[in-house]
Amino acid sequence: MPKKPENDALVTEITPRSQDFSRWYLDVVRRAELADYSPVKGCMVIRPYGYAIWELIQQAFDRRFKATGHVNAYFPLFIPEGLLQKEADHVEGFSPQVAYVTHAGGEALEEKLVVRPTSEAIIGTMYAKWVQSWRDLPILINQWANVVRWEKVTRPFLRTTEFLWQEGHTAHETEAEAEEETLKMLGVYQEVVESELAMPVLTGRKTDSERFAGALRTYSIEALMGDGRALQAGTSHNLGQNFAKAFEIKFQARDKSLQYVWGTSWGVSTRLVGGLIMTHGDDSGLILPPRVAPYQVVIVPIPRGNWQETVLPKAQAIRDELTAKGIRVMLDDRDSQTPGWKYAEWEMRGVPLRLEIGPRDVENGQVVLVRRDTREKTPTPMAELATRVPALLDDLQRALFERAVQFRQEHTTRVDSWDEFKAVMEGRPGFVIAPWCGSAACEAEVKAETQATIRNLPLGEQRSGGACIKCGKAAVAEAYFAKAY
Amino acid sequence: MPKKPENDALVTEITPRSQDFSRWYLDVVRRAELADYSPVKGCMVIRPYGYAIWELIQQAFDRRFKATGHVNAYFPLFIPEGLLQKEADHVEGFSPQVAYVTHAGGEALEEKLVVRPTSEAIIGTMYAKWVQSWRDLPILINQWANVVRWEKVTRPFLRTTEFLWQEGHTAHETEAEAEEETLKMLGVYQEVVESELAMPVLTGRKTDSERFAGALRTYSIEALMGDGRALQAGTSHNLGQNFAKAFEIKFQARDKSLQYVWGTSWGVSTRLVGGLIMTHGDDSGLILPPRVAPYQVVIVPIPRGNWQETVLPKAQAIRDELTAKGIRVMLDDRDSQTPGWKYAEWEMRGVPLRLEIGPRDVENGQVVLVRRDTREKTPTPMAELATRVPALLDDLQRALFERAVQFRQEHTTRVDSWDEFKAVMEGRPGFVIAPWCGSAACEAEVKAETQATIRNLPLGEQRSGGACIKCGKAAVAEAYFAKAY
Repeated sequence: MPKKPENDALVTEITPRSQDFSRWYLDVVRRAELADYSPVKGCMVIRPYGYAIWELIQQAFDRRFKATGHVNAYFPLFIPEGLLQKEADHVEGFSPQVAYVTHAGGEALEEKLVVRPTSEAIIGTMYAKWVQSWRDLPILINQWANVVRWEKVTRPFLRTTEFLWQEGHTAHETEAEAEEETLKMLGVYQEVVESELAMPVLTGRKTDSERFAGALRTYSIEALMGDGRALQAGTSHNLGQNFAKAFEIKFQARDKSLQYVWGTSWGVSTRLVGGLIMTHGDDSGLILPPRVAPYQVVIVPIPRGNWQETVLPKAQAIRDELTAKGIRVMLDDRDSQTPGWKYAEWEMRGVPLRLEIGPRDVENGQVVLVRRDTREKTPTPMAELATRVPALLDDLQRALFERAVQFRQEHTTRVDSWDEFKAVMEGRPGFVIAPWCGSAACEAEVKAETQATIRNLPLGEQRSGGACIKCGKAAVAEAYFAKAY
Repeated sequence: MPKKPENDALVTEITPRSQDFSRWYLDVVRRAELADYSPVKGCMVIRPYGYAIWELIQQAFDRRFKATGHVNAYFPLFIPEGLLQKEADHVEGFSPQVAYVTHAGGEALEEKLVVRPTSEAIIGTMYAKWVQSWRDLPILINQWANVVRWEKVTRPFLRTTEFLWQEGHTAHETEAEAEEETLKMLGVYQEVVESELAMPVLTGRKTDSERFAGALRTYSIEALMGDGRALQAGTSHNLGQNFAKAFEIKFQARDKSLQYVWGTSWGVSTRLVGGLIMTHGDDSGLILPPRVAPYQVVIVPIPRGNWQETVLPKAQAIRDELTAKGIRVMLDDRDSQTPGWKYAEWEMRGVPLRLEIGPRDVENGQVVLVRRDTREKTPTPMAELATRVPALLDDLQRALFERAVQFRQEHTTRVDSWDEFKAVMEGRPGFVIAPWCGSAACEAEVKAETQATIRNLPLGEQRSGGACIKCGKAAVAEAYFAKAY
């Protein structure tokens, strides 16, 4: 039998999740080499292992964006200050957070340039040039880019001054089409995040106070992290005609009248990597859903006897066989480390499946497969690996999602009174569903007293009636409250 | 038979290439919707069709980078001014071109931030943290990113203030390994550019005056554009220990001594899209090599009789069949435009193959294939499309490369005297090979008198002997001179 993991030395480097979730998170980010602090305040370096996860997330979204008729483009990093100021709410929302380029090429600039915090202003300006007739619509463009928002408190992946994201920007003939697009992309977000990242999300509409600066309506997907706090994982905005009016994006309609276009924008970011860590990880480190795992299988050969003649060639053959099946495989054949060290290392890095192979296994024509989530060990005939490994990966993907759904169910409470609300909101409650009167004042008071915010108002049919938990007036909606990142 | 192209109205919008190459280039960029001017001086918008070409170019490089052991990562956009100043040559080379962020988050910054013109400084700082032992080497990291260099004169794709690129940054134990990496990546650049972009390139070493600021040696690939001017299409730098010393990137060597790493960096950019246009285009517009064409085949149905019942379903079936074979197909079934307009439009956009299909064709079970490069028409049985189309695309890819090689041969001249050199350098000579003494003074005089610069000094065996065409002293190398973009 293979040796027991000798992982004590390693695991002590990670604060147990149960003991201090926030330190555990930072420890995992550092030890798994996902990201590192940089000499620029609030800006992180995304290290190769973290970036490989992001690439897989990108590809998953990009496929869906293209399948739903969107195309990619690239717009300038800089926005002349005057353009940002054209939409009043937009500038008010973003100006405290922007970085300004004031000097370039050895001279002071006549007009300051804003480093884009989001690109509605620059893209709107271009759409005004490109759209003349209803025949030019819809415009369905997405951009993968870096953006900068000056943040006071930052945390790797979750909130950084510079981050990577995609921003979709569309223009439509009618209000109904824009609303349909806004909700379609919310649905795409939900589908990708749930099926690829195995993170269950709530979809709903943001309250006015949490609406994107310049939007008519903002929708979001909200996930629940392992510490009971919510994470806004993506937003989709119906911009109405606000930006069209600010940037003069007009078209000749089918009836020959001159109309403003109806706009949407929607984005997800590298924050999702943080969400992934906090949804699935455990005391030993990261657990990656197979679909976004840079390595889905790590092969650890057991170095006994003349293993380099017996075990290694077999391990290489298995790697090649699985790779040919489209599985991402790492063969860790370093002889500078023990198998136990490697077990702990790759567990910490969240590789979904470990394949152990030693001299005895080679003789018996089998290997041992070990799942990262349950640590269940399954001796498996080599001849069956090409079918058993993909099946196990699928199973693991599903199990992680189901576990997260289960966790969310256990951490969702419906309350009807303020006392109940306050009692539940102590500790790590998860989502608390409560009736709300619709007033921003009540929302603000709830936040001031409990730190909880309305994450969103669920779409579709709702339980009607009830009294606002804060003021007791008739409720207009059931709101999902949570303490959030 | 299908109608003749009714493309007069369109083609007059493009200045003939033969008449004014530079205007032709700008016309093609605008009319084919590759890029557009933005409200930010010197910054372009890469439009979806141009960006789709860039995505294909990216994928082609990214595959090779990964196959040669490199991984992607992401480093901050901003570099504290003090870091840029650590390598003396580097700061001298780049400081006239940088943009500074001086204010952010409502406050003046204590230290100005440079918007990265290239990332040696910020990456070097991180490598100093990450490298301790020879076991941590080599580091083989690439980054896909935007960079900013303040340019006085800009032109879409060829020279813009902000551009997209990749920058590889590696660190090695030995000088020999760094040199090997530098040349390996030069080879990768040549292979991708020649096989995917069908652009033949010269590989060679840059002279000292054209060396990257901070490098020991710079190598480049140089292509020849349709107007006889050269384009530097990619560079690969052996950084020696310059950045390692500036940023203290040290490691404990195998012999326990403390050593500085040996570095390389290498990059290609969206400039390649410009190179593609200027290598292959003609008076009718763009000609795209199939491997980087967003659409490799455009299907134009001929709208006669009840074509929507007869022709269209067949056209859709062909589209689906070719798409299933991995071919990128556009079915242009708009009924707002005539076939002739579509022929001219897609020719202008450079689609390699056109597939015309009308009612008679459907009856005969065939279609007409038209090559973009030669305009040769080939009636082709529908049953053979799945094999004939890929074969034709391969042939077209090869033909474009061969034509470009032929053009370069016809525009490469070997001279031995200054009078000859000057005579050839009038007009659009292409490359002029001439003996050079190795002095920067001669190089500068040649440039001042003829605008020609040394593109590079070819690698490998050279014809020895000869006298410098400028000063007559003994030549140390045969140099490739050209007027360049």
